[in-house]
Amino acid sequence: MNPNTKIYILMGVSGSGKTTIGQSLANHLGIPFFDGDDFHSKGNIEKMKAGIPLDDDDRYEWLKSIHKIASETISNNRSAVIACSALKKKYREIIAENIKASIFWIFLNGSKELIQKRMESRKDHYMPASLLQSQFDILEIPHESIMIDISLDQQTMVNTILQETNKSTLGVVGLGVMGKSLARNWARTGIKLSLYNRYVKGVEEQIAEKAIQSYPELSNAVGFEDLQLFVQSLAKPRIIFMMIKAGKETDAFIDEIVPHLDAGDIIIDGGNSHYEDTKRRITYLNKQQIHFIGTGVSGGEKGALNGPSIMPSGSLEAYQKIEQLLFAIAAKDKNGDPCATYIGPDGSGHFVKMIHNGIEYAEMQLIAETYAYFRYVQGLEPNMIADIFHEWNQGTLHSYLLESTVHILQKKEGDAYLIDLILDVAGNKGTGNWATISASELGIPAGMITGALFARYVSTLKESIRSLRQKPISNNTSTRLSIHAIKAAYTAARFINHQQGFLIMKAASLEFNWKLDLSNIARIWTNGCIIRSTLMEKMVIAFRKHDDLFEDDELKQEVILLKSDLKAFCISSLEADLSIPCHITALDYLNSLHAMHSTANIIQAQRDFFGAHTYQKKNDRSGSFYHTEW
Amino acid sequence: MNPNTKIYILMGVSGSGKTTIGQSLANHLGIPFFDGDDFHSKGNIEKMKAGIPLDDDDRYEWLKSIHKIASETISNNRSAVIACSALKKKYREIIAENIKASIFWIFLNGSKELIQKRMESRKDHYMPASLLQSQFDILEIPHESIMIDISLDQQTMVNTILQETNKSTLGVVGLGVMGKSLARNWARTGIKLSLYNRYVKGVEEQIAEKAIQSYPELSNAVGFEDLQLFVQSLAKPRIIFMMIKAGKETDAFIDEIVPHLDAGDIIIDGGNSHYEDTKRRITYLNKQQIHFIGTGVSGGEKGALNGPSIMPSGSLEAYQKIEQLLFAIAAKDKNGDPCATYIGPDGSGHFVKMIHNGIEYAEMQLIAETYAYFRYVQGLEPNMIADIFHEWNQGTLHSYLLESTVHILQKKEGDAYLIDLILDVAGNKGTGNWATISASELGIPAGMITGALFARYVSTLKESIRSLRQKPISNNTSTRLSIHAIKAAYTAARFINHQQGFLIMKAASLEFNWKLDLSNIARIWTNGCIIRSTLMEKMVIAFRKHDDLFEDDELKQEVILLKSDLKAFCISSLEADLSIPCHITALDYLNSLHAMHSTANIIQAQRDFFGAHTYQKKNDRSGSFYHTEW
Repeated sequence: MNPNTKIYILMGVSGSGKTTIGQSLANHLGIPFFDGDDFHSKGNIEKMKAGIPLDDDDRYEWLKSIHKIASETISNNRSAVIACSALKKKYREIIAENIKASIFWIFLNGSKELIQKRMESRKDHYMPASLLQSQFDILEIPHESIMIDISLDQQTMVNTILQETNKSTLGVVGLGVMGKSLARNWARTGIKLSLYNRYVKGVEEQIAEKAIQSYPELSNAVGFEDLQLFVQSLAKPRIIFMMIKAGKETDAFIDEIVPHLDAGDIIIDGGNSHYEDTKRRITYLNKQQIHFIGTGVSGGEKGALNGPSIMPSGSLEAYQKIEQLLFAIAAKDKNGDPCATYIGPDGSGHFVKMIHNGIEYAEMQLIAETYAYFRYVQGLEPNMIADIFHEWNQGTLHSYLLESTVHILQKKEGDAYLIDLILDVAGNKGTGNWATISASELGIPAGMITGALFARYVSTLKESIRSLRQKPISNNTSTRLSIHAIKAAYTAARFINHQQGFLIMKAASLEFNWKLDLSNIARIWTNGCIIRSTLMEKMVIAFRKHDDLFEDDELKQEVILLKSDLKAFCISSLEADLSIPCHITALDYLNSLHAMHSTANIIQAQRDFFGAHTYQKKNDRSGSFYHTEW
Repeated sequence: MNPNTKIYILMGVSGSGKTTIGQSLANHLGIPFFDGDDFHSKGNIEKMKAGIPLDDDDRYEWLKSIHKIASETISNNRSAVIACSALKKKYREIIAENIKASIFWIFLNGSKELIQKRMESRKDHYMPASLLQSQFDILEIPHESIMIDISLDQQTMVNTILQETNKSTLGVVGLGVMGKSLARNWARTGIKLSLYNRYVKGVEEQIAEKAIQSYPELSNAVGFEDLQLFVQSLAKPRIIFMMIKAGKETDAFIDEIVPHLDAGDIIIDGGNSHYEDTKRRITYLNKQQIHFIGTGVSGGEKGALNGPSIMPSGSLEAYQKIEQLLFAIAAKDKNGDPCATYIGPDGSGHFVKMIHNGIEYAEMQLIAETYAYFRYVQGLEPNMIADIFHEWNQGTLHSYLLESTVHILQKKEGDAYLIDLILDVAGNKGTGNWATISASELGIPAGMITGALFARYVSTLKESIRSLRQKPISNNTSTRLSIHAIKAAYTAARFINHQQGFLIMKAASLEFNWKLDLSNIARIWTNGCIIRSTLMEKMVIAFRKHDDLFEDDELKQEVILLKSDLKAFCISSLEADLSIPCHITALDYLNSLHAMHSTANIIQAQRDFFGAHTYQKKNDRSGSFYHTEW
């Protein structure tokens, strides 16, 4: 659906001027005009001629015909003006089915007295007062219409319609790296945009204007620093996409904009907000009849510009109003379907994005560990490692992050590899931390995400603690691993990382009753997002049948076959004193699942010993609890 | 200080009846009576005879004499009654210095008119009305006194005093495993107790009464199921120690009891509450002038009964009122000082207890892993492992948990080792989870606590996932480790566990401005609590000089020497497919600190690649941030 093709429906009671204004509007816009009355069936026309009132069946057929012409116009990427009374909500619903977002309802509004007077002055057109009264009786004024005062002159009315329908379809708030790129993406699809960025003297001045000047595709957008003017520039219901800092700043902006909004307007939060904040904001804004959609957006700067993966949640009703806007910019999966889908209620979209980022943390760490092994244990230069990664990336190990690392390792600054000049202190923006916390709260042993997070934390410890750094890594390991074995270890560890990450989403879905579709989530992660990979394509299929990757016998067997290489990689790394938190956690996790008997019986005995916490017995199916006086 | 010896001070203006009532009370109680007026110095008496008013210096000397007799009486484990006007707060402060908790202030309260009339009827005692007026002018009625209406007859007044001062010193709420044991501990020190347990028909009935009947030491305690009667049975300010389920139940009980309390009363929460809940409750109750102390209590059932480690926090003022009660039951450190101390403001006591439990999780897991190695890799029977642990426990590795495990491994049920009958699914009550979350939030890489928590989580995964358990552990490792090496590995890993745990407290102290005394916290953990150990004695000394164990060169060198054994243990375990999450995390952590270059530069390059997050350079001291167009 092209967001720029529109159906302008002039509606109102008989005599309000639908045909006159509609024709004039169509002329101005250079698009066809259809009079709804022309779409009555022969049967209906004969009934009316015979003075028999139409019943609901007759009317249904007629409204479907109007729907058909509107729908076909849109399908053909065209616009049109239609005149049709459409007095009742249910009539309008028939007309608008599946094309809701493409319709402007233009309601010609006037008092019964004024219309009656006008009708009476028209000699050729007699209308009994009772008929007009009956129309006013059934009229249900649409909430989201453009309301035109018919006491104005015709030219003013048409101008007002042109002005109102020419408003921006979408407002984008916050023009940082991500916001600017998304705006450019939307602008390229032809969607009319209003852009807003706050004014901070000396720091952020005329940001929207500067963006419009810098990028030709934004030339049709309008820039604002005044919030009220920004809101006024948007077509109703207003759709506002925020891309600003998560947390207090997001709350502050919501408080600032809400007084300018009307019932039915929609705010979309595309930042990395915490899912509990999103739930709170949905509830809060719902009370003011404002829709709130929280959406994960992944893909970094390039993804935002060329097609990100989008993970929206909130009320399904509000989602449906913005789905086309999201589809317009989302990346496409291998079947050409958009990498965007309704995730579920509450803050489930931000939750899923948080887990995406958690998986991303561990994917990055696994690559870093593999690099470190090649570099410090096997003594390869960055460009040689880049070559190996490049080769891996051609096959089943293909992923955006691996591909990125190839470019990183090739980059030189003068004679030096740029990677060697970069300070080894890693930042984090909170989502890996949140993912760890959620795993912990939900009882999921997602050690790989935690391991990657803690590796970043270790890198930030102050020098006096890191002063244990006395010893260079020894590269005189007894066994020299093949590239093949290292590749297999990396492959196995990545599988475990995905298994754990999806397990957190499964647990959250049960805990919060979100009914997450794990396969579809994997699908929208096959393109656009940072963790897109060939492995993710496998997940799409696996999660159609299972909600845990270890329930998939084929995948399980694959991992078991790779385990000996993972083990060899870990042992070799330990021998070389190399820190490999994510690989080692993956191996230990497999060992813990392999174990015939875990050592949890020792833990239970200890808990009963000091705290009388009781324990269960292995061969007691009654589920009884025992306490021993040790 | 014996909480059962008391100084009864009859106070009030001249002519209110202090001497008469005081003598009668002393007779009833069979304890000495002192008239404050007898303690004036010769100089004071001569001054008064000469009609020269006493100045503050004269008075100070006199009040110190009264303080001396009161203080000596208490030191000698005796009680006494003293009559002394003590009209001003500052006079009472001099008398009560250091013995505040042992004094009953009994204020004889009557109108000026009544006292004047009585004075005039006494022929031998003339008092000018102006003098009485001047006494009323300076009178500051004490908040926490027992107020006696002097218009009543003498016998009624003495009975009221006896009744009020005979109330319980402490109320204990919740008589589960921990509450009952603490109550018995307090009762043994002679403290008069009121016990309350809720009534739940058919489930919890007459719990307090049953406890009193079961344990002789509780024979002086009074049991309640009626909250109002329970509160009325307590001396003012009422001190109520809660040992009930953390979370909603604690809030519900607070809401239930508060309407029965008065300003100045003190509630102590001894449960495993979340530290943020404790902070919230302090603020909430503060508004109602009720003191709230949150306290960690560790030691399990046996510790609670014979001397736990106690970690209270909240307002220092409220803490001082209950310190002696906590000291009375706490375990003693090696110098005989109580294993209880004021931790800090807010919920810092519960935070510290949470970290205690986190360290405990990893300590338990390390023992379980060592057991598994001996059992499954080296093929030893539980009793043989018990012998090894027993020997370790005689030396520097001594700890309560290791000792407990010796008993556990020796226990048989019929011919079988009980440990072999216990189901290997480990429970958790939340504190390990909270400790993981706090570490994550505060940016501390506390991988060992997390590893122990996740090991418990893995044990709860459903059988279909754990179906990877196909393969028994292989015990044909090439290298057979010596017991000495295994011991060294365990020693090193325990050190790292303590280093990480204390690091979380250090970070929290900075973040929340708690000014935690890490050395003193280690000291109160040297006895009574679950993680008491010989290692903890070392922590007491190390944290006097440093706030991070790795800043202690001697300890650091010890760990570095042990590292090769830890490495050998981990490699041998991996070779045998044994899951050892805590040992392996300890080793990896050491490796990450050892590394000349961490791989965080790869992470930073990737973040800049996909998200333009920028990076810093190694040799750029300006702290500039760089972005590369990769």
